[in-house]
Amino acid sequence: MKPNFSLRLRIFNLNCWGIPYLSKHRGDRMKRLGDLLNMESFDLALLEEVWSEQDFQRLRQKLLPAYPAAHYFRSGVIGSGLCVFSKHPIQEFTQHVYTLNGYPYMIHHGDWFCGKAVGLLVLHLSGLVLNAYVTHLHAEYNRQKDVYLTHRVAQAWELAQFIHHTSKKADVVLLCGDLNLHPKDLGCRLLKECTGLHDAYHETRDFKGSEEGCTMVPENCYVSQRELEPFPFGIRIDYVLYKAVSGFYISCKTLRTTTGHDPHSGTPLSDHEALMATLCVRHSPPQHTPDPTQGPAERSRLISVLKEAWTELDLGVAQARWWATFAGYVIGLGLLLLALLCALAAGGGVREVAILLWTPSVGVLLGAGAVYLFHMQEAKGLSRARAELQHVLGRAREAQDLGLESQPALLLGQQEGDGAEEQ
Amino acid sequence: MKPNFSLRLRIFNLNCWGIPYLSKHRGDRMKRLGDLLNMESFDLALLEEVWSEQDFQRLRQKLLPAYPAAHYFRSGVIGSGLCVFSKHPIQEFTQHVYTLNGYPYMIHHGDWFCGKAVGLLVLHLSGLVLNAYVTHLHAEYNRQKDVYLTHRVAQAWELAQFIHHTSKKADVVLLCGDLNLHPKDLGCRLLKECTGLHDAYHETRDFKGSEEGCTMVPENCYVSQRELEPFPFGIRIDYVLYKAVSGFYISCKTLRTTTGHDPHSGTPLSDHEALMATLCVRHSPPQHTPDPTQGPAERSRLISVLKEAWTELDLGVAQARWWATFAGYVIGLGLLLLALLCALAAGGGVREVAILLWTPSVGVLLGAGAVYLFHMQEAKGLSRARAELQHVLGRAREAQDLGLESQPALLLGQQEGDGAEEQ
Repeated sequence: MKPNFSLRLRIFNLNCWGIPYLSKHRGDRMKRLGDLLNMESFDLALLEEVWSEQDFQRLRQKLLPAYPAAHYFRSGVIGSGLCVFSKHPIQEFTQHVYTLNGYPYMIHHGDWFCGKAVGLLVLHLSGLVLNAYVTHLHAEYNRQKDVYLTHRVAQAWELAQFIHHTSKKADVVLLCGDLNLHPKDLGCRLLKECTGLHDAYHETRDFKGSEEGCTMVPENCYVSQRELEPFPFGIRIDYVLYKAVSGFYISCKTLRTTTGHDPHSGTPLSDHEALMATLCVRHSPPQHTPDPTQGPAERSRLISVLKEAWTELDLGVAQARWWATFAGYVIGLGLLLLALLCALAAGGGVREVAILLWTPSVGVLLGAGAVYLFHMQEAKGLSRARAELQHVLGRAREAQDLGLESQPALLLGQQEGDGAEEQ
Repeated sequence: MKPNFSLRLRIFNLNCWGIPYLSKHRGDRMKRLGDLLNMESFDLALLEEVWSEQDFQRLRQKLLPAYPAAHYFRSGVIGSGLCVFSKHPIQEFTQHVYTLNGYPYMIHHGDWFCGKAVGLLVLHLSGLVLNAYVTHLHAEYNRQKDVYLTHRVAQAWELAQFIHHTSKKADVVLLCGDLNLHPKDLGCRLLKECTGLHDAYHETRDFKGSEEGCTMVPENCYVSQRELEPFPFGIRIDYVLYKAVSGFYISCKTLRTTTGHDPHSGTPLSDHEALMATLCVRHSPPQHTPDPTQGPAERSRLISVLKEAWTELDLGVAQARWWATFAGYVIGLGLLLLALLCALAAGGGVREVAILLWTPSVGVLLGAGAVYLFHMQEAKGLSRARAELQHVLGRAREAQDLGLESQPALLLGQQEGDGAEEQ
């Protein structure tokens, strides 16, 4: 690669709020999204919440001349909602579906049915290997009493792990999506500290858009004003994150967001705001001087966030086991009740009542069985994440004890060490 | 790394048949397995079907001095059954749980509850990066009418993809496990052609063990003789597969299998045979001469197996959709029946019969709902694998048309190309 190598990348990200039958003006908004993408001609458009594959196919037809490559990530019962349109050929793609993603009995929230995932695209641009990730984490329905907090932390951890293990040969890593995490939330800090990804909003010197870079703003007519009450400017939960590895340097030249309106016609494209970033990748000679941003302070910040996440996951494991045990007791009681009802039905007397109670009893039994299985699986999934995290925490502590200068990504286990681990 | 670098790796693999309450002499066999591993001192022991975490913990205690590092891969309701013991520190580990793994209503087979997975360990050995994978695919219960064939093909594909995306910086890739695939089965060919992995049994010049390298043999007293009837020597479904990337050369010096007996005490360690391989990794200067094993013949073999797998997955998608549609009709009929029963119960007359029929009707409705959701998810999972496979097939055909000399692993999308794809 030439020493004066330079590459400009224009990136678009939007959570499209494309729920069939439920999202207002979906068809019109999708049409205008297609118009905007055609007009602006980004290198890569990463979309979330395109729940209908027909919407994707329509967009694909419309965008074919400007974005010859596209992919829709399928998963779960409904789908992941993730898709991507690219000006450049996609060399490879794959996806990882998060192990934990809410509860099947929370039907009104629906996340469990979606199969929330992270999609990966590998692009080769003028000899540079770009790994672009698009994701959508579990929604937050109640910030005060967030029953999905542990799942979101586990998802952030899996996301960091997936990026780490699949980007080892990438020159540039890009992550876009709706993380459903505020910038200072545990999951967001965990992700950033573990991967070393930089936040375009913090890095750019040229930002134009909503106040404080918010991606759900009260000015947007599709947003529930009641939910945003505690946040006068709105919330920032959609991100453009990036990093370059040794030999390359990446910076965010400009970052724009929509501000509750379509940039052209006035009505919003979605209930979220779109992010439009211009990134610049340059060749940079390998540096042998220690990076002042990777000192002991950063290491202890990583250890601190890992400890915090470990505690959260540990609580989650205990809670999942409690639910599984509770469901186990209900199964036992349900079986007793059924035996009693059979005896009553056979003996006459309150026969009709006994028969009438059969349906709810069998229902309770089956329901408890499903709850038992689900929470056993949840406990296993959280234990897995906790074990992985504990391993990384052990390595980070070793590095701290040795006073090593190591990059956050390296603390995900890449450095040499001698300690045996238990997981 | 020194030009005369050489590393000897002793690998052990066994499907331990460790089902609590069901597997015969489990405790005794696990004890003897521990003794054998301690005596032989392998570099890496990769185990499958260690279903009880207590068994793992007992082994761990026993093996701690000789194998200071260990990991148990947790997933699903029961677990993945996979674990590993290592003489060397484990730098990193992660896992991928297969999207499709049988049917929840096939309770007697139980695979769905296990969360079958592939586990990855990254080891740094004298500066060499070794990615070791351990896996266990869905069992084959009826070879003549194999209802799990599509799932196993999808699992083989996901396994190949996982290895491809996570081993880009590895010097040596090792895959051990119970693939539940005969050497010429579609899944096995797909895995080998896509990853470029070599089969220790075919590569070594020094093999000692069961006839034709079989890993389930009629001499083993735990094996069902009836199931092995069509195979006089047994079947080969457990493997040690490996490859080295540019700069290294790997060969299998010796391969041993047990032959239906414990090598020391006479009774078998499991219903499967153990594999013991000695691999030798040497430094090899980068070769610029084309590799004669990667010619047009290999390319067309890859294309042929990809086409075959695509057809199998396509059939699977159609079948999954058929089941989802069928379940949809049953749901509709169930709702009608429930409404009718409500009317009959309210109207008197056959009231008791109507009430009695409530339970099975609700049961059928809930069951059909679950079947619908499951097969929708199955169709999405198979469509995903089909799309990924189609992309790789497209690239392989492009390479064939261009007459490029490319390695199988490269055909998983690494080479530069211009074609837009649809998935």
